[in-house]
Amino acid sequence: MMKKSLTRAEAAEFLRSHDNFTLLSHRRPDGDTVGSTAALCLGLRQLGKTAHVLHNDEVTDRFAWLHEGLTKAAAEEGDTLVSVDVASPSMLPKAFAPLADKIALRIDHHGSSTSFTPLELVDPISASCAELIWDLLEALEVRPDRAIAQAVYVGTSTDTGCFRYSNTSAHTFAVAAKCAQAGAGVYELNQELFETNTLARLKMQAWMVDHMKLLGGGKLALCAIPRAVEEELGVTQDDMDNISSFPRTVAGVCMAATLRENGEGDSKLSVRAIPGYDATAVTEKFGGGGHKGAAGAFLHLPLAEAAAAVEKALVEEA
Amino acid sequence: MMKKSLTRAEAAEFLRSHDNFTLLSHRRPDGDTVGSTAALCLGLRQLGKTAHVLHNDEVTDRFAWLHEGLTKAAAEEGDTLVSVDVASPSMLPKAFAPLADKIALRIDHHGSSTSFTPLELVDPISASCAELIWDLLEALEVRPDRAIAQAVYVGTSTDTGCFRYSNTSAHTFAVAAKCAQAGAGVYELNQELFETNTLARLKMQAWMVDHMKLLGGGKLALCAIPRAVEEELGVTQDDMDNISSFPRTVAGVCMAATLRENGEGDSKLSVRAIPGYDATAVTEKFGGGGHKGAAGAFLHLPLAEAAAAVEKALVEEA
Repeated sequence: MMKKSLTRAEAAEFLRSHDNFTLLSHRRPDGDTVGSTAALCLGLRQLGKTAHVLHNDEVTDRFAWLHEGLTKAAAEEGDTLVSVDVASPSMLPKAFAPLADKIALRIDHHGSSTSFTPLELVDPISASCAELIWDLLEALEVRPDRAIAQAVYVGTSTDTGCFRYSNTSAHTFAVAAKCAQAGAGVYELNQELFETNTLARLKMQAWMVDHMKLLGGGKLALCAIPRAVEEELGVTQDDMDNISSFPRTVAGVCMAATLRENGEGDSKLSVRAIPGYDATAVTEKFGGGGHKGAAGAFLHLPLAEAAAAVEKALVEEA
Repeated sequence: MMKKSLTRAEAAEFLRSHDNFTLLSHRRPDGDTVGSTAALCLGLRQLGKTAHVLHNDEVTDRFAWLHEGLTKAAAEEGDTLVSVDVASPSMLPKAFAPLADKIALRIDHHGSSTSFTPLELVDPISASCAELIWDLLEALEVRPDRAIAQAVYVGTSTDTGCFRYSNTSAHTFAVAAKCAQAGAGVYELNQELFETNTLARLKMQAWMVDHMKLLGGGKLALCAIPRAVEEELGVTQDDMDNISSFPRTVAGVCMAATLRENGEGDSKLSVRAIPGYDATAVTEKFGGGGHKGAAGAFLHLPLAEAAAAVEKALVEEA
């Protein structure tokens, strides 16, 4: 398949000259894919287009409100399919997999990603897909209203860990300023997304402080969380959102791996690393991928064996 | 004393027409007072003025680097004294108290503050003093270099809890964008200021999760931390920086009070509240003050008695 890599202006032209858009988000959807699809959908509707977000039943309570009034249950013949923040076909929810080869345009910011669509707008410098969507909407001369601004703010802030990760740039702050200017309830969103942890989440963090394994003179951290502990502490999926960023916040830790049981005999690995360390070097050993700062993989191993394998990989790669 | 409330332009004119500046920060100095004094000092020097920050021995390791090369040990006859982020004379370090009535200009952003200088530039809307200093430096046509940008970024980010508190505005993000543009190492600063917690700090948070008292149906939280626990966990002053923001992050908590023993029989109270709740309503009962979202007081009571008094005040005011 010939891959055509578009500029923002070219992608805007594609959107202007098409209609009946159905936007696809990724599996285990985060704030960026949900916020970005919502913002793009709202922007296209403002231009008079018919646009929907394809209903993704993996969207959690934390982000579901963003898609309210925007979804449809299934793609239809003649829809222009656009994926947003989807790094590869395997990142689509299972239910969307049959649509992978029908997607016309891929909008993404993942550097380590797969070209699988005829057209793509990919900017690996963009800290979030949401910033890229904001640029695109500006190119389309969409008027940024509060709903669009809120959606972009959610994407931008979550993908930068509220402006703390190494991907945060001057452009990130500039977009956040414009979102605030356009009426995004920044404080309320921050509270909801970052500043509020349930007691269950805090107890989970307390458990991790007590059980994490520090290796490599304190530069590496490994946390393997049994499902039984999650159940005992009563954490929800939203509570566990971004839990893998927690061990890396321990002073001195350069790379941290978190393992969780997915309930089907597999262990989900998440690795976070500071600049100078490469999380993908660890995840690629297990068939995964991601960014240097944040990467993941699925291990078809029970937790204890997965932990042993990951410990070995961590020490080798650090 | 006639108090003249200046605009930014008038304050800039005052600075242009004076020299031999000595800048004063506040007691228990935070990132804002240290960053703001540093930025103003560097800006004035860029304009060819003689300027120093008065050495404040309460500045912790976390922020001391900002004042490197900028301090002098004592104010001299003929110095133009300017206080930055000082809400009242009682907020000056003990060593600076004799200078209170010699300060020519007060630059501040605290709404609930005391006019105690002949001239003042006070903007209660500004989330941090640092943003105000940035505006002032722009008015003075100072070229924002990396050192100035870093100092302002530290002030802006710390006083907004890395853009999370309710004081965060579009202007806050716009200033952060300009700091990033001017070369501030935003990621490294964020890591240093926010993303890195020692194991000791994390263990303190874990202790607080286990010992905090929730009242008022979970809307109020009270944490009284004995010095013995701080010693046992080995936390430093930097580790305890902003510890009082932690209990308020529990989902559902609207107002949270934290008490620490200061080692001299007193208990230091910090109250944090979400919009709709007023932290000063609690602290004023004990002769303290601050902002609606964040306020403090010193109680001349041992910890247990202080906790009982604060619990009563919390429940009354909520």
